[in-house]
Amino acid sequence: MEDLLKRRFFVRPSFEIYEGVSGLYDYGPPGCSVKRALETAWRRHFVHEEDMLEVECTNLTPEACLKASGHADRFTDFLVKEVGTGPEEGKSYRADKLIEDFFQAKLADPKVASEEKRKIREINPASMSAEQLHKLICEYAITAPGTAKPLSFPQPFNLMFETSIGPTRKLKAFLRPETAQGIFVNFRNLYEQNGCKLPFAAAQIGTGFRNEISPRDGLLRVREFTMAEIEHFVNPKEKTHSKFSAVKDMKLPLWSKTDQAKNSDPQWISLDSAVSSGLVSNQTIGYYLARTSLFLQTCGISPDCIRFRQHLDTEMAHYAKDCWDAEIFTSYGWVECVGIADRHCYDLKQHALASKKNLYAAERLSGEKKAEEVTVLKANKGKIGTVFKGLTQEILKIVEEMTEEQKAVAVKDLTETGKMQLKLSSQDVILTSEMVSPLKVAFPVTQTLFHPSVIEPSFGISRILYAVFEHVFNRRAEPGRNFLHFPVHLAPIHCSLLPLSNHPQFTPLITQLRRQLLDYELATETDSSSVSIGRRYARTDEVGIPFACTIDFQSLQDHTVTLRELSTMRQVRMPLSLVSQEIAELAKGRQSWQGLERLYPAFTRADT
Amino acid sequence: MEDLLKRRFFVRPSFEIYEGVSGLYDYGPPGCSVKRALETAWRRHFVHEEDMLEVECTNLTPEACLKASGHADRFTDFLVKEVGTGPEEGKSYRADKLIEDFFQAKLADPKVASEEKRKIREINPASMSAEQLHKLICEYAITAPGTAKPLSFPQPFNLMFETSIGPTRKLKAFLRPETAQGIFVNFRNLYEQNGCKLPFAAAQIGTGFRNEISPRDGLLRVREFTMAEIEHFVNPKEKTHSKFSAVKDMKLPLWSKTDQAKNSDPQWISLDSAVSSGLVSNQTIGYYLARTSLFLQTCGISPDCIRFRQHLDTEMAHYAKDCWDAEIFTSYGWVECVGIADRHCYDLKQHALASKKNLYAAERLSGEKKAEEVTVLKANKGKIGTVFKGLTQEILKIVEEMTEEQKAVAVKDLTETGKMQLKLSSQDVILTSEMVSPLKVAFPVTQTLFHPSVIEPSFGISRILYAVFEHVFNRRAEPGRNFLHFPVHLAPIHCSLLPLSNHPQFTPLITQLRRQLLDYELATETDSSSVSIGRRYARTDEVGIPFACTIDFQSLQDHTVTLRELSTMRQVRMPLSLVSQEIAELAKGRQSWQGLERLYPAFTRADT
Repeated sequence: MEDLLKRRFFVRPSFEIYEGVSGLYDYGPPGCSVKRALETAWRRHFVHEEDMLEVECTNLTPEACLKASGHADRFTDFLVKEVGTGPEEGKSYRADKLIEDFFQAKLADPKVASEEKRKIREINPASMSAEQLHKLICEYAITAPGTAKPLSFPQPFNLMFETSIGPTRKLKAFLRPETAQGIFVNFRNLYEQNGCKLPFAAAQIGTGFRNEISPRDGLLRVREFTMAEIEHFVNPKEKTHSKFSAVKDMKLPLWSKTDQAKNSDPQWISLDSAVSSGLVSNQTIGYYLARTSLFLQTCGISPDCIRFRQHLDTEMAHYAKDCWDAEIFTSYGWVECVGIADRHCYDLKQHALASKKNLYAAERLSGEKKAEEVTVLKANKGKIGTVFKGLTQEILKIVEEMTEEQKAVAVKDLTETGKMQLKLSSQDVILTSEMVSPLKVAFPVTQTLFHPSVIEPSFGISRILYAVFEHVFNRRAEPGRNFLHFPVHLAPIHCSLLPLSNHPQFTPLITQLRRQLLDYELATETDSSSVSIGRRYARTDEVGIPFACTIDFQSLQDHTVTLRELSTMRQVRMPLSLVSQEIAELAKGRQSWQGLERLYPAFTRADT
Repeated sequence: MEDLLKRRFFVRPSFEIYEGVSGLYDYGPPGCSVKRALETAWRRHFVHEEDMLEVECTNLTPEACLKASGHADRFTDFLVKEVGTGPEEGKSYRADKLIEDFFQAKLADPKVASEEKRKIREINPASMSAEQLHKLICEYAITAPGTAKPLSFPQPFNLMFETSIGPTRKLKAFLRPETAQGIFVNFRNLYEQNGCKLPFAAAQIGTGFRNEISPRDGLLRVREFTMAEIEHFVNPKEKTHSKFSAVKDMKLPLWSKTDQAKNSDPQWISLDSAVSSGLVSNQTIGYYLARTSLFLQTCGISPDCIRFRQHLDTEMAHYAKDCWDAEIFTSYGWVECVGIADRHCYDLKQHALASKKNLYAAERLSGEKKAEEVTVLKANKGKIGTVFKGLTQEILKIVEEMTEEQKAVAVKDLTETGKMQLKLSSQDVILTSEMVSPLKVAFPVTQTLFHPSVIEPSFGISRILYAVFEHVFNRRAEPGRNFLHFPVHLAPIHCSLLPLSNHPQFTPLITQLRRQLLDYELATETDSSSVSIGRRYARTDEVGIPFACTIDFQSLQDHTVTLRELSTMRQVRMPLSLVSQEIAELAKGRQSWQGLERLYPAFTRADT
């Protein structure tokens, strides 16, 4: 399949003519088209269906933002270097992956005792500290692959790409490692956009960048990738979801951390009982587990190749409350494609702290209103003006903008000594209690302020795309007749147009058909080459075009054409004028091929 | 208008809570939606309509690629720094812009003599060398704005953001300054994808990055932006376009370099005469001028606010043959939004040279076939094997892979001395003419190889978007009733749903309507707040929602609703079940509001 993806230019390594850069891939015409369709499907399934607020933020991110989020300090993998001399000297490896590979080899080795294998299975290098990794490397005498040279002590390596902004190159910046931060820093704008009401969800589809130490596994571990993230903001006290009841009876294969520890299989559990038993920590996570499963299925992933794995306590960030990965089964094993995490109030709190900005949501209090007594400083403009003349405006401004702490000090001074000191830009002044007087005011308490919690479903679009490619790949017994069977809405091109020959008499009908399909936003490809229809079918099958429309001599007479479906290779004969409409209905899932076969007569010939 | 864009979160400065980074902007929900719609419209107008090959390449670009393209060495602006001490010390300015600002002020000054103004108008700092800029700065005694301190000698400043890839940080890379290079390095893949036929066009919508020295002009000069580029590959001898005849009678306001020099206005000229007179250098450029004008018009830009300015000889890169900018009139004056350039064979030649890869296209020769005599080296495996044993494979491989130059040397040696020398990895060997013999072979010449020319229409999507915002902005006499009048297909949301009150009896109809609109891929917004319908109309008008559907008590009885159009504020009463279908037709331009008014009875009430 990887050969097909490369040969038909779905996706190829970037900068191949310059010998490439590992971990970077380009999407060619069919790949680009499927990727756009996948993004559109995601947008429809989540953004439009759930009324989310979609944003598009920048890739360039100043250091301040990523300091606050913790990425600048902690977004690291451990790196070990080969020690010694030789051509591989200083070659770097990602420590946890290197150890995992070493253990995989051990587990596959029949000579290793089962007791040792059991022990190895319990080790999880991905969640270890540098010391723990180093201990493992020493304990198992793990060396550099190929050269068997010793390895250095693991060093943290920040995975962000660094750059700088501006002519002085002084403003340090990074390429965003995730799209989420753009949403967090815009929380206030989005909250206002939503009429200052919770809950609401914001979403973003965009590029993420990670400077992987040693990219591998083809399209799965890359340095530049597309992700689609949702930040669902809720009141931390109410993580319910208004549409949970619509999915509560859905059963999903949930692999709890307890079952992982026991080495037992995921269990198919209804979301209702998963949430009520506390296995899934709240309705909102439960709702997204269901929506994620449905989304992956509409992309052509079969339900038995999807499972939801709960994060182990050792994997989870300290602030996270619960986290589930949607994993898809591929030729690389189970691959994490979506993460759904309850990040609690961590992100907004961190940004509020670092930026000193208000990132609160307000909750209107119901029931009995309490009153809160607040002390304000009332300035007497006339008195101040008489004494301080030209400084008056500055004094009034400073008094008005005092923080709560400064105000408390001033009130204390004024009450106890009858005066207070104020620092102006040019000098210090003394104000008396006649100029500013502390005043007690009773405010009714109508609301409380809090930092919303965030439930974050984060989709690796490039990974899901790869899984889709694998899942839609079909072999046929005849050589060279393999085909990709995309769901119609994801197909790179919806219909190929095949005139029986390249004789100009067919041109007007082809033009007409192409125009009609374009009007329905359906992509076409015309292949009027002189090879046989059978060989042209094979070409369109291979690239995953679900329908092929042949224009023959009969078409010239009665304006009917044959429409062929890719996977069944069956054909119907139908009026040319109805082709676009029917394919549009097929793409929207409102019509099926079987339905079409009931409407139009079958057409049979040898070379399908 | 900029207030509206910010307040309704169409677009806001990025990282505002961290005091922002100049030149970076985030698109909020309505802005993001309009931007996506603009990209979709572009894709429909160019990629689908013209059967282009769309690709998606990476933002990260290794230095080798940008060395070849010339960007690493020449993608620069000149920077001048403030000299001296003080808080502004070392502050950088873009030299040409600084001088232009200085001249603008002179031109606006009534005290400056008209002779001097005439002289100033002829100076074009944008195309000057460092020496020329410095001379101007000295001649006019231009100093740093604000402080009037002297300015340094202009220094070239590379506008690319630099980073590095991999754990050693040794592989230097940049963020792409344009999307075009991704297409050039994939030329071979795309050419094969197109069945090795010319002409064809490839397209890419993606992000570009430029580290502007001093970003300003709001959304027009930014550091991260979306662009959409087409690379149309043609045989350099045939820059005709098969669809040119369809646009040849179209008249466009072309501002030739001669007219610019004469200070006369652009002239409306038919494309046919522009191409035949040589003003526009070929049909392909002419065709794209037409398609670009049509595209901008479908985005809501009126034709009298579009002009095409030819590049002056001083502006154009040395390899370019002709270049035209589509400029749109905005509050910032005429703004360059699209560039259409004939880049000749420059790009492919440069990459072929740097990568040593074949980036040729082939042209099959018709008519009389010539034969070309080629000398090949024929190796005698048996003889070589007898003498060299284990080295045989290596020798055969080296002989086979010899370059033309190496072959010529070998043939000369073999002919003159009967032997030749060959460098193996381990040693040098001597081959006799019995082991390898030069053989003259006559090949029929069936094709010639050449580097295709490239016509490049390059669209600044973010700039066009800003121009659209300006052009769809409308004032109403009543305060707070301004509105954005997008073409329906670009509207951020297609229809707002307004129940007369938030009483639950309206919910089922709202749900039904929303579902129907979603099925037609139409975005909705429900506003069931308790404010008056009139105020809710004002809110949806301001954000540019073209249609508003009110569900009232009559709707509960007879399932009809009122549909209101934004710009006319007129309403019709129509069956709920037909709303989605009619709006879909309106969005596709197949129905008009006037048409709707003929079909359905008018509805009038006070609070529109």
